[in-house]
Amino acid sequence: MIKIEREKRELAYQGTILTIYRDTVRLPNGETEDWDTVHHNGAAAVIPVLSDGRILMVRQYRNALNRFMLELPAGALDSPDEPDEVCAARELEEETGYRSENLERLICVNTTVAFCDERIGVFVARDLIPSRQKLDAGESLDVLAYTMEELEGKIFSGEITDGKTIAGLMAYKVRYCS
Amino acid sequence: MIKIEREKRELAYQGTILTIYRDTVRLPNGETEDWDTVHHNGAAAVIPVLSDGRILMVRQYRNALNRFMLELPAGALDSPDEPDEVCAARELEEETGYRSENLERLICVNTTVAFCDERIGVFVARDLIPSRQKLDAGESLDVLAYTMEELEGKIFSGEITDGKTIAGLMAYKVRYCS
Repeated sequence: MIKIEREKRELAYQGTILTIYRDTVRLPNGETEDWDTVHHNGAAAVIPVLSDGRILMVRQYRNALNRFMLELPAGALDSPDEPDEVCAARELEEETGYRSENLERLICVNTTVAFCDERIGVFVARDLIPSRQKLDAGESLDVLAYTMEELEGKIFSGEITDGKTIAGLMAYKVRYCS
Repeated sequence: MIKIEREKRELAYQGTILTIYRDTVRLPNGETEDWDTVHHNGAAAVIPVLSDGRILMVRQYRNALNRFMLELPAGALDSPDEPDEVCAARELEEETGYRSENLERLICVNTTVAFCDERIGVFVARDLIPSRQKLDAGESLDVLAYTMEELEGKIFSGEITDGKTIAGLMAYKVRYCS
């Protein structure tokens, strides 16, 4: 198979969390095209499992979609070098008010490969220890607990649509609940 | 819960498939922040199931990640108004060389909700009918068939990382293979 070659990369826009590049690529047929590419430093998400098997979820307003979304707790890496396990442990505590010393890597998710390099490490957190929610100044979210059966219903009814959340929950179910 | 209000939206960059906005949002604490938002018209993906249960996947080079990725067949809507079922049927035939008159909606995926409005409808395609691959001039991809057991192994080993693909395959396994 012939590889598409990136011949040129130009900075198109420097945002606060995103960097947009205009890449010129040479296609297998010899022609060139300009493709948009979004750089993101990456993130981590957590499946926090309570002792009764229920899973903690967060509900928050998402500006990009202009609606509330039910998602796994998650957040961006503090820096490009931060290990995603460290980010996952921090976001778990900050968003849900529980911490865990038992985090297990479940899957890695590249969120939207056609134009973005974002990667989210998804972890299972067990043996949850009550701590304290520490939301950022601008953050507002509800923490809710659901059974896997309830979450499965919400995925197949279209109520849960967040990609990392569907990938994480369904992978967890396949690995641990079947 | 207090909603975050979008107060202003400015076009930051107009790309070929992406539009980047700089949104000014008012946070629950009363302060404002500038947030990057990426608009994408949306896409569709397909889980093509052969009569022996194996699933067709495509392997292609992804510029944003600078590597080859193993994914479900998928593609962007031709226009913002195109129904995702139509897009799914077209991409199935173009990329795999099979068509189907039996497409079933499985899940909807918002790929990366923190900064993008992209939505991918994921469909199961059965009763596949041999047709002809019709790749775009610049497209180059391999079509490969795998059992669900093989795909599950590749997800948990980290070989498959594409979000729509993990979400789609694991949801398919939960619904139809357990």
